[in-house]
Amino acid sequence: MESVKKRLAEFSLEAHDLYLNQSVPYLEESPDPLQFYRDWIGPNKPCIIRNACSHWPALTRWTPEYLRETVGSKVVSVAVTPHGYADAVNGDRFVMPEERAMSFSSVLDVIEGKQQHRGGVFYVQKQCSNLLEELPELTDDVEPHVSWMSDALGKLPDAVNFWLGEESAVTSMHKDHYENLYCVISGEKTFLLLPPTDRPFIPYGVYQPAVYHQREDGEFEVVDQSDTEKVPWIPLDPLDPDLDRYPEYRKARPLRCSVKAGEMLYLPSLWFHHVQQSHGCIAVNFWYDMEYDIKYNYFQLLEGLCDVTGSTMTSQQHNVIGETRTERSKEDLKHVDRK
Amino acid sequence: MESVKKRLAEFSLEAHDLYLNQSVPYLEESPDPLQFYRDWIGPNKPCIIRNACSHWPALTRWTPEYLRETVGSKVVSVAVTPHGYADAVNGDRFVMPEERAMSFSSVLDVIEGKQQHRGGVFYVQKQCSNLLEELPELTDDVEPHVSWMSDALGKLPDAVNFWLGEESAVTSMHKDHYENLYCVISGEKTFLLLPPTDRPFIPYGVYQPAVYHQREDGEFEVVDQSDTEKVPWIPLDPLDPDLDRYPEYRKARPLRCSVKAGEMLYLPSLWFHHVQQSHGCIAVNFWYDMEYDIKYNYFQLLEGLCDVTGSTMTSQQHNVIGETRTERSKEDLKHVDRK
Repeated sequence: MESVKKRLAEFSLEAHDLYLNQSVPYLEESPDPLQFYRDWIGPNKPCIIRNACSHWPALTRWTPEYLRETVGSKVVSVAVTPHGYADAVNGDRFVMPEERAMSFSSVLDVIEGKQQHRGGVFYVQKQCSNLLEELPELTDDVEPHVSWMSDALGKLPDAVNFWLGEESAVTSMHKDHYENLYCVISGEKTFLLLPPTDRPFIPYGVYQPAVYHQREDGEFEVVDQSDTEKVPWIPLDPLDPDLDRYPEYRKARPLRCSVKAGEMLYLPSLWFHHVQQSHGCIAVNFWYDMEYDIKYNYFQLLEGLCDVTGSTMTSQQHNVIGETRTERSKEDLKHVDRK
Repeated sequence: MESVKKRLAEFSLEAHDLYLNQSVPYLEESPDPLQFYRDWIGPNKPCIIRNACSHWPALTRWTPEYLRETVGSKVVSVAVTPHGYADAVNGDRFVMPEERAMSFSSVLDVIEGKQQHRGGVFYVQKQCSNLLEELPELTDDVEPHVSWMSDALGKLPDAVNFWLGEESAVTSMHKDHYENLYCVISGEKTFLLLPPTDRPFIPYGVYQPAVYHQREDGEFEVVDQSDTEKVPWIPLDPLDPDLDRYPEYRKARPLRCSVKAGEMLYLPSLWFHHVQQSHGCIAVNFWYDMEYDIKYNYFQLLEGLCDVTGSTMTSQQHNVIGETRTERSKEDLKHVDRK
């Protein structure tokens, strides 16, 4: 089994030698769809595209004043957590945020420090096409899809999501089954990225799902979702990795990039990512469903091998994962990484 | 180690369930480059394209008479073997054909049965862009490249090869590091295809290279190339697989297809293929270098795992392979499968 683990580690290093970049490259304009497919989607490599969304009216329009006027009374779903970590491992639990329905102006009040509140960190991060569903008044300020990406993939996005959050709101490391275009409207997002081929170095565990609940006194409690099956998640914080516990992570080679207002990150499917942001940063992202083809098939093999070699989880843990995986259909698997 | 072998077998079966076709589909016309990239090159799936080369003058012009007149006096390289198997395992040797320089009319004489000869099977199959290099007079009858494929890949072919052979000339199962467009001009080629993901079921060995040499009396002898390093090759004949010796091959799911005059097969990189033909079949193929990106990286992992699990070769054999692989550069690896 050691020879398999060794081969897995070699494979990850070969990916860096063969075709991955050492930093995230920039394109200076919207690309030709075929060229984008060939250079980035096909090889599954991230890049930042400038001048692709910088002409959107949102870039100049989406001030707090305009947003209050246009959608201030709309009710949106807000993730509230004690320290900014939504959908993250906390001890032996996978803890999801309290989802709170609030008027958009109340969210702005919190972010602008105008409202005394009971504490907690607020993040509008509902990934259910919330721009189109919850804030349709804003859609004319952006584009409903990214035409060259839709042309490249031959389909429209599954979801267009709106993000607005506080500085301490963090997205813990995970991967999505989507080709993702992440457009920053104001402020800045900081991404830490790891290619799917670094999977052998990334620890996974399986955790009891739970949700935060803020009590009347402002304290947060963690409430188990006892009727829900355990969730595989990454316990490691890439900003402060516990290398004694997860020594394999030493071999991972994360890329870091900042995406500024007017820039668009292409975040390829199955890339692990951890996201931070400047205070009040607004972003819109487009999720295009990935293809469940040879690359997905190979990645599933890689995941399975990490499980059976126990590279990155304990044997008790991988038994549970093994069970859950075989019981899940392809459709389920697509969504398992985002609650 | 059994759990790894099991996972490898599951992976191969999942590929068929997820995205592979049960037979080779037909396209009825030359495709749009982006669509072809997205539907076939990206997912690494074969298809047959009709009406893409059927308009080439070669289809009507390349009669024996025309060929004698146009290139009859040209000297071409011909592969001569005792039974039709060039570049194939014979006992404990990997035996390559005798390469014989002959005038094109002499080759036609052999194929048309007009010339008494000392026996052996003849195949014009030199894969060094022999159409452009050895028979430039014929190039105007075809196209120098396939424009939609060159557009899709953003490059021109590395080689354009001319094939003409006898019915018993067989290409033994192997894979190439090329995106291959195989155009039949006259007659018919029969392909047996296996996806790269079936690699765990395909036996490999390493063999002493040798070449056939026809003596004056017409008998063939096998002459070792003792100064050449051993060659990994597939000993199995997919037309008559020795399932007692290679039981794993029971799980392989070969696709079969016939490509007729005027049709073009897209044979994706790293697909294993075995080829037969009708007597005197003429074909032209275009080799576009593959991308050494994530799919290649994953395939290398798969090959390495088949080696370390000993899935499809003996441990002595895989030790040798292990050595040769690490000593070879990427450039070398590209060409190792075709002498």
